[in-house]
Order: sequence, then structure tokens, then C-alpha cells
Amino acid sequence: MTLTTTDPASAGPHVVVAPDSFKGSLDAIEVAEAIAAGVLAAVPTARVTRLPMADGGEGSLAALAAAWRVPQHELDTVDALGRPTTARWATSPDGRTGVVELASASGLPAVADAEPQPLHAHTRGTGEVAAAVLSAGVEEVLVCLGGSASTDGGAGVLAGLGARMLDADGVEVPDGGQGLARVASLDLTGLHPRARQVRWRLAVDVTSSLTGEHGAAAVYGPQKGAGPGDVAFLDEALARWAGVLERETGRAVRSLPGAGAAGGVPAALVAVFGAAVERGADLVAEAVGLPAALADADLVITGEGSFDSQSSRGKAPDGVARAAAASPAHPPVVVIAGQVLMPAAQSRASGIRAAFSIANGPLGLDELVAHTAQRLTETAAHVAALALGEG
Amino acid sequence: MTLTTTDPASAGPHVVVAPDSFKGSLDAIEVAEAIAAGVLAAVPTARVTRLPMADGGEGSLAALAAAWRVPQHELDTVDALGRPTTARWATSPDGRTGVVELASASGLPAVADAEPQPLHAHTRGTGEVAAAVLSAGVEEVLVCLGGSASTDGGAGVLAGLGARMLDADGVEVPDGGQGLARVASLDLTGLHPRARQVRWRLAVDVTSSLTGEHGAAAVYGPQKGAGPGDVAFLDEALARWAGVLERETGRAVRSLPGAGAAGGVPAALVAVFGAAVERGADLVAEAVGLPAALADADLVITGEGSFDSQSSRGKAPDGVARAAAASPAHPPVVVIAGQVLMPAAQSRASGIRAAFSIANGPLGLDELVAHTAQRLTETAAHVAALALGEG
Repeated sequence: MTLTTTDPASAGPHVVVAPDSFKGSLDAIEVAEAIAAGVLAAVPTARVTRLPMADGGEGSLAALAAAWRVPQHELDTVDALGRPTTARWATSPDGRTGVVELASASGLPAVADAEPQPLHAHTRGTGEVAAAVLSAGVEEVLVCLGGSASTDGGAGVLAGLGARMLDADGVEVPDGGQGLARVASLDLTGLHPRARQVRWRLAVDVTSSLTGEHGAAAVYGPQKGAGPGDVAFLDEALARWAGVLERETGRAVRSLPGAGAAGGVPAALVAVFGAAVERGADLVAEAVGLPAALADADLVITGEGSFDSQSSRGKAPDGVARAAAASPAHPPVVVIAGQVLMPAAQSRASGIRAAFSIANGPLGLDELVAHTAQRLTETAAHVAALALGEG
Repeated sequence: MTLTTTDPASAGPHVVVAPDSFKGSLDAIEVAEAIAAGVLAAVPTARVTRLPMADGGEGSLAALAAAWRVPQHELDTVDALGRPTTARWATSPDGRTGVVELASASGLPAVADAEPQPLHAHTRGTGEVAAAVLSAGVEEVLVCLGGSASTDGGAGVLAGLGARMLDADGVEVPDGGQGLARVASLDLTGLHPRARQVRWRLAVDVTSSLTGEHGAAAVYGPQKGAGPGDVAFLDEALARWAGVLERETGRAVRSLPGAGAAGGVPAALVAVFGAAVERGADLVAEAVGLPAALADADLVITGEGSFDSQSSRGKAPDGVARAAAASPAHPPVVVIAGQVLMPAAQSRASGIRAAFSIANGPLGLDELVAHTAQRLTETAAHVAALALGEG
């Protein structure tokens, strides 16, 4: 389940390298490679386990597939605007766990070329990918949320899985948030036969609520192109949708923490399937096998582009730090980041032993981005030498 | 002899903080304070010994006085252009060792306001300071070279100590390199009575030779205002002066390594007093008591503005690394610098366990300089936490 670069029987220290991507520069797999190279340069006897991480949002599928050493499957489906696209998914080596990444079919970047359609954008493509994953026979579906272009309360996911959202006249409403304003009932008769037999786990990287001033429409609508009028419309539509979901399923979703992630997708999946809402970074950490790798670790190196203090972080290094704290080995966790904005005292309090920037002096962002891999390797060499007492 | 910020009986780890200044930002004492604050923030039980360092050039007097906890004395004398100035000197707590810093009386920055006078600038002021130090009754004089405005082969220092440089007619030649072109003999009858009774040790930060293409005039003349004609004139004058010194004292100085430092000052002091030419960083490290402080050190943190690969470094971190390597405790040495340009593999090979920049992300030089103290404290906190296993 893990990527080990050196002989597992090596007598040297065991270093777990579990970074997130450096957005705009290197993906998590490349970051892990660069850090591992530095560790081995400084401590050639080290056994290095590379476990690219993610926060449950974009990049999580790639990190999981890399950790599992499985290929990513492709599916022809539709993007958030209903245009043809190819999305990816994967299953664990034992075939029991499937991974769906919302951003793959329904992500915002893929529709950045078109006029924003905040009322019409939807997640049907993600539902179709989920159906493909179910057909592969999995017992558990991890849905990595984040990066969505839509505010459709997950109605599109249900639609892609075969459900129908109907208005008061029993007519199917159109995809997108606009349709939710007229939704009156739910027809689940056409649902994928395995959809209610599996365990759904939702990796969420925000803790927004479904509606209100901290809701999906108010907080994330504007970056998806929603003006003030659209936000108010979508907020009301989501409230109506929650009412329908609660009435039809008997499950409360209106005040569920995290229900507003990815335009409200958790609302639908929690109501209909009893999906579990989980902290994305923790879910990915568990899925890639981090707890097992930590059991005999002497040092853990994680990282991300910007290690800052935003109050609700939920990012990959946090998941790594929590996993290390929970591990009997209690290995020290070091962050290597493009920029370190969190004060040292605060990072120590959150279980990070130390944090270092890859910047080696005054230099501009472009220069830093251009040399990210080399700087990661150098910084990791210094960290490993200091932490492991060699060099 | 050392500055300890916490109870010497503390049971915590012993951290020796021995940085150079960050030129243009903080002096070595301020750098040591900032680093010590970070160490104690991360590891409150630590015993921290602050030993501001220097490379034997400018700043060495201040570092030695701080380490010794002695005041700096002042002397009214002349600068490199013969104008009134006030220079400083100090003696060790036991009164046995005196310190003269050439840059204090005869430094280049102090005459930067005037038209450069490469043929006339001299070191007489430094000689007068040395005479004051001798009058204080010391047994040993440390002369910290570097930062000179002159190319006078040390004739000015001898003049300040009471010697007379004469031409073929027995007439005293003028101060400065120009006078050397006519020098024919040396009259030491007026020399300070203690000048030949003490041990002279010269802290040298370059390994230039006295004359030739790697000589004092060719390499350093231009930055003192010497044009090509001046360089040739001064080179020939230094050669003539070396001939006089060798004839009068019987000591060879022409090919002495380091004789070209500070415009050739070592030539005169080696010839007349048998002065020892020493690596500046090592001499300062010894004088501040670094070897004793290292005896039970668990970690050594040094630093400088730019930690780079220039082939003949001879800078404070090198002196610290050599002292640590020679210490039975073999404590790991970490460099914290404004910029880290030396490759990790090279710094490890030179006895530096790890090196980190205070830069915490992409940022400009001005921003970094403005926050040097805060960034030093933060970086030191991360280093101490990682190295000492707390936090």
C-alpha cells in the first residue's frame, strides 16, 4: 500500500514522506520524490516511505492511486456545464474501496473557459462516475469533494446515479441549482442497485453549513460566478431542497456541519445514503495507509505550498500530525512548505515539531516556483541530517 | 567569559549560540539574542550560552568585548586620511590580552565621505591605538585586520607605535603607500617600550599575498580608489618595503601567506615583532572562549548574513565548525543565515550539520532585512525543537 524507495530491511532510520501538492508548482507525488531524494542524500541508510497526501479535495484521487499503485480508470461523462468530458476514478488493490473525485468530472477549472453559469452548473458527471465505481463492485465509496463549479445540493450526483428530482407536477426539474427552486419530490426507483448497499464516505475540506450566511451559496457562490441575486436565489433553493430531502428520507441535513461543501453535495448523500462526513485530510491519511507506515517511523516529513494559520485548516499536514500523534511511535512531524506563515509556537501546539520554508534567501515567487523540486531536496537534506543526527 | 542567559545548573540541554553579524541588519550580539530567544521559546529548559562571533575583521572587537563583558575604551587618534577620529579598543577581563581592530581607527567606511586617496591613506591611527593597548600592560595583542582604506604595508602602524620610516637621506617619508616608494631604512629607537615584549597575533580574513597579481594592491587597491597606475605604483612600493623590512629584521615577509591583508599590515608586524598570522575566525572563536563552551554542548547554532560557497571562506561559521569538530563533545552545528547558497552536501562535508535561511517564503531583501530579528527567533525555535526533540 505504500511506496518504499529503499530496502525495507535497511537498518537505517525510517522516514515517512507524506506531503500534499505545492499548488501551481508540483503535485504531491513529485513533492514526495523531491523530499525523498534529499533525505537519502543526507542519510543514505534511511528507509524512505513515500506517501503523497491530499486534503480530500482536488488531487486526492491521484494521491490515493499513487499510494495504492493502481491505475486510474476513465469514464466519458459530462462536465459541470453538461459538455462531454473524461473523468477518472480508481479502486483500492483489494477492490473494496472506490474513489470518486468531484473535481475530476464537475470541477471549476474545467469550465473556466466558459461563461459562468452559477444557476445551471451541476454535478451529474460525478454521479455517473460514482455509478461506474458501484458497478465495479466496491463496498465503500470515498467521495473527495472540493473544487466544484456548482451549487446543486448534490442533486446532480443523485441524477447521475439514476434518481429523478421532480416538481409539484411530477415533471423532472433541470440540472443545477435553478432546478432545486422547483423541486417537490424525489424518485429513487431508478437508482443504481448498489447505491444503497455500500458505505459512502465524504472527504470534506471545509466546514461550511448548507444555507445561511456561512452557507454554500453565500461563501462559495461568488467564486463560481454567482452575483448577489444568484446567491439569495441559490440559498433559498438549497433550503427548499433540504426540506425535500429531510421529508423523503427522514434524515436531517439542514444544520449538518460540512453539508455545504462542494455546493451542498453532502446534503444529498447524507440524506439518501447515510453518508459519513469526514475530515478530508484524515480520510486520505487513513486510506493511503499512513497509520501503518507510522508504526515504526523515526521521522515524518509533510508539506504543502503555504503553511499558514487559517483557523479551519483541515489540510494534509494537519491530518499527518493527527495520525502521528495517534501513533504509538509518536514520530516527530516536520513541515516543509513554500511559505511558512504559521508562528512556530502555534505549529508546535498543533503537533508539528518544526516547519521550514524552501526559500533559501530573498527571492521572488516565480524564482521559488521554478526551483521548487531542487529547493525541496535541499531543505529535506538539512531537515533529515538535523533530525536523524547524521551528516 | 561567556554570556549565559539561563541558570548554569539547569538540567536541560546546553545550546551554544555563536553567530556572526548579519551585515546591514543586525550585529552579532543582536543576532545571538534573537536566536537565543527562539531556542528558549521552543525548549524552555535549555541552557543557552550566547557567544557573538566574528571573522577577525570588522565587528570582532565588539564581539570580543561582549563575550568578555568588558567595556570598550576610546582613544582620540587619526583616521586613514589623518583626520581626527575616536577609535576603540579593549582588554580581556584578566588584563592579559588587548584587542585592536584596524577598522576602528583606519577603516574604509569612515573615510567614504572624502575623495579616495589610495596612495596617501594610512594606518597610523591603528598604531596609536596599539600603543594605548601596550600601555595598558597587556601581554598579548590581537590585531583584527580587514576593512582597511590603505595600502601602506603596515608602515602606519609602526609609525603610530613610534617607529620612523626613512628615505635614503635619512628623512622621514610621509604616511601612506606613496612614502613606501622612497623608504630605505627603519628607525625603531622610538618604538613603544613594550612593543617587542608582547605576543602579536593577527586575525586575517583573507589569504592574499603581499605583492603580485594576488597581492594587496592588485586585489584590494581598486576598492580603495586605486586606478591601474596606482595599483602598479603601490605594488612596487610594497615590494620595496618588503625588501627594507627583510633586510632590517632578517624575517622573510614577501611570500608570507596572508601578508597582503589590510593593505599589507602583516608584513610590518611579522617582520618587526614576529607576529603570528592566524585565521581570523579561529582566533576569535578561541578568544571568546568557544572551545570551553562547547565542552558540554548539545547543539551549536551559528550564522551569518550569507552562507555561501566562496572557496576561501574563513568566516565565523567555519571557525565554529572547526571548533566543534575539535571538541570532544562533537556537538552538531547548525547555520541560520539570511541566505543559504552553499549546497547541503558541501556544508555537511565542512562540518555543518544543517543550514536554514530565515526567509519563510518568497519575499524581497528589504522585507527580510526589516524582519531579521523576528525571523531569526522563529527559525531558531524550529531548529531547536527539531534538534533537541521537544515541542
